Amino acid sequence: MDGMTDGQAREPYRPDGFAQLTYHNLAAAFARGGDTPRAFLERCLETIAAREPVVQAFVTTNPEGAREAADASTARWKEGRPLSPIDGMPIGIKDLIETRDMPTQMGCDAYRGNFPRRDSAMIRALRDAGAVILGKTVTTELGQAHPGPTTNPFDPRHTPGGSSSGSAAAVGARMVPAAIGTQVGGSIIRPASYCGNIALKPTQGAINRGERQGLSQSTAGVHAGSIQDMWLVAKAIANRAGGDPGSPSLYGPETPPVASKPTRLIVMEAEGWAILDEDSRQAFQALLESLRAAGIEILTRADAPAIEAFERAIANAKAVTNDIGSFETRWSQQNLVEAHPDGVSRRFLNRHARGMEMTLDDYRARLLQREAMRRALADLVPLADALIAPSSPGPAPVWEGDKPGEPLAPRPTGDIAYNAATSALGTPCVTVPMTAVRGLPMGIQIIGHPHQDARAAGLARWMLEKIRPVVV
Amino acid sequence: MDGMTDGQAREPYRPDGFAQLTYHNLAAAFARGGDTPRAFLERCLETIAAREPVVQAFVTTNPEGAREAADASTARWKEGRPLSPIDGMPIGIKDLIETRDMPTQMGCDAYRGNFPRRDSAMIRALRDAGAVILGKTVTTELGQAHPGPTTNPFDPRHTPGGSSSGSAAAVGARMVPAAIGTQVGGSIIRPASYCGNIALKPTQGAINRGERQGLSQSTAGVHAGSIQDMWLVAKAIANRAGGDPGSPSLYGPETPPVASKPTRLIVMEAEGWAILDEDSRQAFQALLESLRAAGIEILTRADAPAIEAFERAIANAKAVTNDIGSFETRWSQQNLVEAHPDGVSRRFLNRHARGMEMTLDDYRARLLQREAMRRALADLVPLADALIAPSSPGPAPVWEGDKPGEPLAPRPTGDIAYNAATSALGTPCVTVPMTAVRGLPMGIQIIGHPHQDARAAGLARWMLEKIRPVVV
Repeated sequence: MDGMTDGQAREPYRPDGFAQLTYHNLAAAFARGGDTPRAFLERCLETIAAREPVVQAFVTTNPEGAREAADASTARWKEGRPLSPIDGMPIGIKDLIETRDMPTQMGCDAYRGNFPRRDSAMIRALRDAGAVILGKTVTTELGQAHPGPTTNPFDPRHTPGGSSSGSAAAVGARMVPAAIGTQVGGSIIRPASYCGNIALKPTQGAINRGERQGLSQSTAGVHAGSIQDMWLVAKAIANRAGGDPGSPSLYGPETPPVASKPTRLIVMEAEGWAILDEDSRQAFQALLESLRAAGIEILTRADAPAIEAFERAIANAKAVTNDIGSFETRWSQQNLVEAHPDGVSRRFLNRHARGMEMTLDDYRARLLQREAMRRALADLVPLADALIAPSSPGPAPVWEGDKPGEPLAPRPTGDIAYNAATSALGTPCVTVPMTAVRGLPMGIQIIGHPHQDARAAGLARWMLEKIRPVVV
Repeated sequence: MDGMTDGQAREPYRPDGFAQLTYHNLAAAFARGGDTPRAFLERCLETIAAREPVVQAFVTTNPEGAREAADASTARWKEGRPLSPIDGMPIGIKDLIETRDMPTQMGCDAYRGNFPRRDSAMIRALRDAGAVILGKTVTTELGQAHPGPTTNPFDPRHTPGGSSSGSAAAVGARMVPAAIGTQVGGSIIRPASYCGNIALKPTQGAINRGERQGLSQSTAGVHAGSIQDMWLVAKAIANRAGGDPGSPSLYGPETPPVASKPTRLIVMEAEGWAILDEDSRQAFQALLESLRAAGIEILTRADAPAIEAFERAIANAKAVTNDIGSFETRWSQQNLVEAHPDGVSRRFLNRHARGMEMTLDDYRARLLQREAMRRALADLVPLADALIAPSSPGPAPVWEGDKPGEPLAPRPTGDIAYNAATSALGTPCVTVPMTAVRGLPMGIQIIGHPHQDARAAGLARWMLEKIRPVVV
């Protein structure tokens, strides 16, 4: 599907027929001069020109600034002095994150034209590593439910997912080899699943969120076309900007984790299993069969009391996640609503109302539930290498916009049923495009214990390299 | 010293001869109409007019906005519907914290005129509780070492302490019954000690720091003239804005903790004991004698291996605290330095250079040391009710400004030797003015275990009410 434009006939997505855009493999060519970061950037800009009218992944791009940065990078590679393995890599930045050279409008009318002219921690780190900050990608309104204009790069009738809609779609459309997303409920792993990305939602706090520290279960992460680029981008940030205040940041090797075959994996049902459609369930079961055939033991809730207890502990993770976020943001949201009563959506106001009605003790009760979830996860450490689950309850649903006169669709960018628990648990998740369902991608996630980001990436890489994807 | 102006002859400070300004005791009068919040505010404004030319506690005041808020409060009290026990209380706000009606200039040239026109979490909460946001108080530059113009209200040749210089001085000068401060190293408890305040540095995270989440060991707290007002202000914020994201916020009663006699207290030596001057040491020892005479057992590092181990664990808390803060702020400080190379002080640049030379592993090593300190503190739980220490290594030192041609004075607002450890430990500290040394106040702090804020306040209240202060 390389170079497909949206005027052409659409073919069904096939994981093994889709060539992801990658950067890490060009280092030798950059050093020799057979290829250059500037030429790579121009190819990205061509793809954007071809695909963007339909995909609409970007809010803003800065091609001139990007060209200048790519030229400087080209010179460094030629001199044999790149600043990092990602020197020259064009990267898309979710439009919740401040950049000194582009506005930060957060998908929200109230922030139209907002231009703080400073770089967030991770942007500073990326620039210091030589990366090319190419543009700001569409986010749902303030990272919540109300969607932006982005369409799914494999079928524009479908949602790209959210809230990191534009980052996932830009990578899925081969516009950039990597993009930054953020996740509170399911905002990296779900859109990555829908758009055929490889993506890392790291351990809570492992990548410095800069000025966006207002939520206790939010992480910044990386969408990419390969495990290698995903890891190199995450490490480049962590080495320079660290993690959130108080976090030891991302552990793991400087080079991408090698493929590592698991011995045992635990299936996480969470709130997703009950709503997984028949095709998707069949695809996931077929993948588990392939893993068993490769000699891997697959454990489920029936196999150990600790797994059953874990599933019970996470059974209402969506409500826990939503309430914690609603309470933590209510003071800043109330400021926003008072200053810009017409600058936010109805969806936003509905969610905000829930935060305003909560008491401090309601919030404390949710924190205690989250703590219990984390203890139940810790009890699984002796049982297996990691957990495995679909990254979303099926492929991207159709989204054709709200219908005038009808109630607001509750989940325009899809359901967080496979993501709320892992967000609340603060675990690292790596999603890889291992299944295709009805012509669209559906990711499979490997879930590690906190700070086992590299291990999760190595296990996911093994699956990606050794197991044949399932097409249903 | 009530009503003393700086033209008058100065008398030495005596804890039992100084009438603090209080608000909580006027509720009945406000309800009856014998006094009103508006009249209270006018008395505050008179004191400010008399003392401010020398004390210089405020950067900005908003008397008209304050009068409007005080009138609204007066009406609510008369109708029997105050919004909270602190409805109508005039409060000073450290100028690191955003307020919608006054600039937030952070004692830093680079932020001159900075006016974000929004309320931070705690300011929103205070307004929702009916409090009167009277003005912004002087902070050292960005809460670090470089001092502002504020002088000690008991002798203008001396520092008021920092970084919450203006909040401590405003309360010490009876300009307001309470003021908000923040502490990373020693920025609430030390200036409160120097200015004869009562103050709470709560458990790490117990009061929502709003947009200022960039440091892992920073707390917002309350300077006041009484335990009662201190507690009521802290609770008013916690009930409405909660704590930092993920914190269960301030535990304890809605009404001020009752006085509670301790059975056993542990003396914390920290890095302060070695540098305590002879008069201050004598004052502290005399206070301990009074406590022993009242039947309280006093334990020191010689009395239990766990106390000795704790003292060893906290022996380099100043370096741990400084390094953690330097690393966590380096990305935002680097942005600031690049955007405003002439907008920051030499002291700031020196500190920033340390952050820039640290590696992620240096930072992780400091986090591990901090974790070891916290474990050592937890081992003290069975031994005593709380810890006790001077709140500063002596009374406020003389500060007459930097001398041209000489090296920068290292600690213009005093030494954090008695505060760095408790900041790193995340413990609640309550300081009360129990000693006077050479005519100036020196506070004594009760240090609780995390989330025992109310217990620490009750123990401190007992000492304040039952033990005669020491004058040396």
